Amino acid sequence: MNFCSDNVTGVAPEIMQALVAANQGAAMPYGDDTLTQALSHKFQDIFGTNLTMFPVATGSAANALALSVLTPSYGAVYCHPSAHINVDECGAPELFTGGAKLVLVPGEEGKITPENLTQVLESAGAGVVHHVQPAVLSITQATEAGTIYQLEEIQALSKIAKTHNLYVHMDGARFANALVSLGCSPAAMTWQAGVDVLSFGATKNGAMAAEAVLFFNQKLSKTFPFHRKRGGHLFSKMRFLSAQLVAYLEDDLWLKNARHANQMATRLGQGLQGLPGVKILLSVEANEIFVEFAPAILQALQSAGFKFYIFDGKQLVRLVTAFNTLPSDVEKFIKVAIAAS
Amino acid sequence: MNFCSDNVTGVAPEIMQALVAANQGAAMPYGDDTLTQALSHKFQDIFGTNLTMFPVATGSAANALALSVLTPSYGAVYCHPSAHINVDECGAPELFTGGAKLVLVPGEEGKITPENLTQVLESAGAGVVHHVQPAVLSITQATEAGTIYQLEEIQALSKIAKTHNLYVHMDGARFANALVSLGCSPAAMTWQAGVDVLSFGATKNGAMAAEAVLFFNQKLSKTFPFHRKRGGHLFSKMRFLSAQLVAYLEDDLWLKNARHANQMATRLGQGLQGLPGVKILLSVEANEIFVEFAPAILQALQSAGFKFYIFDGKQLVRLVTAFNTLPSDVEKFIKVAIAAS
Amino acid sequence: MNFCSDNVTGVAPEIMQALVAANQGAAMPYGDDTLTQALSHKFQDIFGTNLTMFPVATGSAANALALSVLTPSYGAVYCHPSAHINVDECGAPELFTGGAKLVLVPGEEGKITPENLTQVLESAGAGVVHHVQPAVLSITQATEAGTIYQLEEIQALSKIAKTHNLYVHMDGARFANALVSLGCSPAAMTWQAGVDVLSFGATKNGAMAAEAVLFFNQKLSKTFPFHRKRGGHLFSKMRFLSAQLVAYLEDDLWLKNARHANQMATRLGQGLQGLPGVKILLSVEANEIFVEFAPAILQALQSAGFKFYIFDGKQLVRLVTAFNTLPSDVEKFIKVAIAAS
Amino acid sequence: MNFCSDNVTGVAPEIMQALVAANQGAAMPYGDDTLTQALSHKFQDIFGTNLTMFPVATGSAANALALSVLTPSYGAVYCHPSAHINVDECGAPELFTGGAKLVLVPGEEGKITPENLTQVLESAGAGVVHHVQPAVLSITQATEAGTIYQLEEIQALSKIAKTHNLYVHMDGARFANALVSLGCSPAAMTWQAGVDVLSFGATKNGAMAAEAVLFFNQKLSKTFPFHRKRGGHLFSKMRFLSAQLVAYLEDDLWLKNARHANQMATRLGQGLQGLPGVKILLSVEANEIFVEFAPAILQALQSAGFKFYIFDGKQLVRLVTAFNTLPSDVEKFIKVAIAAS
Repeated sequence: MNFCSDNVTGVAPEIMQALVAANQGAAMPYGDDTLTQALSHKFQDIFGTNLTMFPVATGSAANALALSVLTPSYGAVYCHPSAHINVDECGAPELFTGGAKLVLVPGEEGKITPENLTQVLESAGAGVVHHVQPAVLSITQATEAGTIYQLEEIQALSKIAKTHNLYVHMDGARFANALVSLGCSPAAMTWQAGVDVLSFGATKNGAMAAEAVLFFNQKLSKTFPFHRKRGGHLFSKMRFLSAQLVAYLEDDLWLKNARHANQMATRLGQGLQGLPGVKILLSVEANEIFVEFAPAILQALQSAGFKFYIFDGKQLVRLVTAFNTLPSDVEKFIKVAIAAS
Repeated sequence: MNFCSDNVTGVAPEIMQALVAANQGAAMPYGDDTLTQALSHKFQDIFGTNLTMFPVATGSAANALALSVLTPSYGAVYCHPSAHINVDECGAPELFTGGAKLVLVPGEEGKITPENLTQVLESAGAGVVHHVQPAVLSITQATEAGTIYQLEEIQALSKIAKTHNLYVHMDGARFANALVSLGCSPAAMTWQAGVDVLSFGATKNGAMAAEAVLFFNQKLSKTFPFHRKRGGHLFSKMRFLSAQLVAYLEDDLWLKNARHANQMATRLGQGLQGLPGVKILLSVEANEIFVEFAPAILQALQSAGFKFYIFDGKQLVRLVTAFNTLPSDVEKFIKVAIAAS
Repeated sequence: MNFCSDNVTGVAPEIMQALVAANQGAAMPYGDDTLTQALSHKFQDIFGTNLTMFPVATGSAANALALSVLTPSYGAVYCHPSAHINVDECGAPELFTGGAKLVLVPGEEGKITPENLTQVLESAGAGVVHHVQPAVLSITQATEAGTIYQLEEIQALSKIAKTHNLYVHMDGARFANALVSLGCSPAAMTWQAGVDVLSFGATKNGAMAAEAVLFFNQKLSKTFPFHRKRGGHLFSKMRFLSAQLVAYLEDDLWLKNARHANQMATRLGQGLQGLPGVKILLSVEANEIFVEFAPAILQALQSAGFKFYIFDGKQLVRLVTAFNTLPSDVEKFIKVAIAAS
Repeated sequence: MNFCSDNVTGVAPEIMQALVAANQGAAMPYGDDTLTQALSHKFQDIFGTNLTMFPVATGSAANALALSVLTPSYGAVYCHPSAHINVDECGAPELFTGGAKLVLVPGEEGKITPENLTQVLESAGAGVVHHVQPAVLSITQATEAGTIYQLEEIQALSKIAKTHNLYVHMDGARFANALVSLGCSPAAMTWQAGVDVLSFGATKNGAMAAEAVLFFNQKLSKTFPFHRKRGGHLFSKMRFLSAQLVAYLEDDLWLKNARHANQMATRLGQGLQGLPGVKILLSVEANEIFVEFAPAILQALQSAGFKFYIFDGKQLVRLVTAFNTLPSDVEKFIKVAIAAS
């Protein structure tokens, strides 16, 4: 009954079991353990390429630490105004980069457009000492608006970025939701499309607290360990981060979880679509829906015990589904909305 | 058989059970959950005072975030040369404080002496614009040398610190080991002795990854939440940090674990004391022993499968015991040493 | 013949004389000299209030250091997209504030509108840990577009800022040009209108390299000296900064210089107004004009030896007049434009 | 009569004349002027090598900006405990490097010894993620103790530094005083001895406010312009910094000035040597003397109108001579001391 966020959920049972299983005997700390090694191989298999990976515990840490090695302190990071790094991390990127600037590139439905990116970069003043220097493009997949960049869109943005000597970072806090939505390979959505570094999310999709930073461009990863340690993000008992991620990737759990979350959102969207007093504002492509409800409907839903965030003190509601959202809760939600509309 | 560190251990069974138990239903994120509330009350009970507490996942995070609200960027943090914040955090305090300076105050057996502190502070140049400004005293309890500050020592250092308008921070990564060694109350070892902020450690003593920053001086805590978030250290599924700490404090698990670890170290010390070719270098007061072994003994121990860190490419060995160190391993260790000596 | 910027000019003769005169005997360093004391009194007289002032050498230093004491590292500074602090300081505010975020508030002709400011602040998320926290409003007077905020506009913006607990900073790199344009008192344009801290510019209006940060809200100034020193901006031979500023303020030199610069711009504007192939884009209110020239006119002006910056590889030209712009150069400029139009 | 510091002096007449002379017509800003170009050539001539140079206004700026491109934020800068960067810059290096750590290497008379440097570096933990990473050796020539590194000492330290992959920075706030003391070439004391980057001082030896950062290792200079701008240290009217430095180097003014200052110190040392109640504490090798005076002598000197800094509330006095110290003042000083001893 809680549609506030995918972070209100607990831990997927397979992952909790893996934590229990990992708790056998001693293991050398800081990643010098067999689970972390296994995880590294797992990621390489899944992405079909050599890569360097670093488990961390939060999405903000993954993003900010990734950016810390991609931009100098006098650099510019280009992102969408709604990007998590811009809105929801209380300045973590600025802290970890030593004060780099996030430069905003707008676009509909949470997505940067190639036209806007080109325009911003062409007037960025690369090489001119008065201006922060173009360094990174950061895109979010799935976006904060619950939408998905198509492969051609990622490729187009990466191409522009490379032309202007930018690195490309992808914030994949909801990477799995995007992947199953597109139905493509992890490789296609990342390094084959020009992504250098990925913040690979798991927490929102069933982990307890586990993400990973993946460097497809491995030379960029050299100084990352020092930034991670310096940020207080190197876990001594690392095996318990790695155990979560191994279990997450095992037997396609991550894809299964994401598919379920997306299906629940799709069903919610279908059920609410066209109801009087209900307006779906953005395409439903992953596991989020943004809806405007008439006051009566809103009240009915809250009275029925449903929880969700309401933005701007208005009727704008965000509904987020998750790996363990009950189909019966979704059906009940729709039923209440219909009754009140 | 692994005496490398208390961070090679797994998770205490009671804490693992608590994690499993916490995984029921949805919970609001970022600490707005019942377990986190319960933890706050628990800490207040145990320390016998009002306090504000913030769970985090690593000791470096606890220390660096605590310091981030105690010193301005142009401030000085006084600590022992061997302090974890000085040696083992790759500059985390400098990052989180915006570049404050750690000023080293020496002393035997890992402990700052009142004389040395006074001397350093009197020539610190408080108020003079050319110099970094005295801001914080940070002491480590138990110390990195495995020794313990007596209550009078903490009180004396705090008094000097207060006289010079410093805040007092305690790095308590091994807080429980120190507490049971002194046999005093948590209050006596902290706020009653002048400590303003405590990094309360649990990871080394049986948690998976959980520490807490405790503000006895509550007004200092106001901006902490922003620093924690900005550092990427605010966990969305906070209940799983809090669950660890609640279980850690429940039924005196933390004290029981620490007592066991200390006893194992004491027994090791007793067993090795006076053996030819064995030199115990520092007082054994908590769960660490620093020993010089003759080469033959060192080799015998390694051949028998014991693991430990050897410093300086020499015979200096650090042995760390933990909540789950087997008495039989300790006895075997002693036996091998005796046989080789 | 050089209209590129008011920083291509040399030093006003009165100021150069003052430097020569200041070079007598020894003087205690770092501001402990009689000229710096005299300057402080001078500023208090001119602004008709108690204030604390700090000479520095560059406008970027003045702005960034002012901001360093007005916002925490997790704070937000609201400014116009064209603000010097946002565009032309290569991230100096981010460096000196420890990574605060500049949040952009748009408006026509280089000016933030009260409506836009209100809207941005109302969705800023004050008190919410995920978001950077509203801290400062920074306005530029005269603006980067060569326009002037009217007193009522400053008052209105300050009022909104105060309502949201923001401090108000004014970037007055061209303060004198704005002041003579409005014809009001320095007090009216600053502290009486709600400004807490002013970056008072002199370099562009005849000094060699001298600005001052003025705190009307004196309690905010307490930690400034440490930030200035730490930034490498505390001059040992401070008397030579102060000498420039004393001479600048003496006998209304600053107002005389600014009046001349503004008159030259006004004359340029009048002379170009309405010519075919000439389009004046923004109101001419201080000492800058933004003009679009037809290619033939542009070429004629350049052939005649006039220098100016052309933006965007197009025909958009910025003309800046200064304290020593020759009326004959202005007339010649107009003449060449007329001949080519 | 003022022996407090070489920064209590005014400006050498040749340099003041050069400032007046530079004030002709317009000049493009930010270093795009003929004087700055001339200065670059001048430095290359004098140092006999290709180099990249950047004028700045203060010594702290020169040092901190130099370090900003020599170390990552997780780096260690090795310096003497008495180094200006450690003691007298209020944390400027920490600010500009993003929080690098100054690691102290002791030695007699203000000089790092090769033995101590080797020892510190061998236990520095290069490559180990828990520790800050060795990055820079910074030596001060002349030292803060008024002593001079011999060429072989610089070479030996540089060799150790290079062996450990450190860059070598020289703080040359009193570079000229050291140079004339050694009687060697600028090349011999810098790049030929392994120095990569030099903070070249002029302010203490007759300039108004002018220093330069010289990169002998030119590839290190690439990002320096952005750091300088971002630090608020890029002067718009750069020609007035360059004019000072050109005049300083012209006709060996810098060497002449330094020779005079050193001679005055030597004479003071000779005159005071052996007097009862006078103890000269450190070798007098440049333009500073550290003396302990008996109370009666101290009082006599102060009564006679001499000014100097007294350290530690004791009788420890620092006397600094300068380019314009009057020989008659020196003789009078000696006379008063003799009379009171």
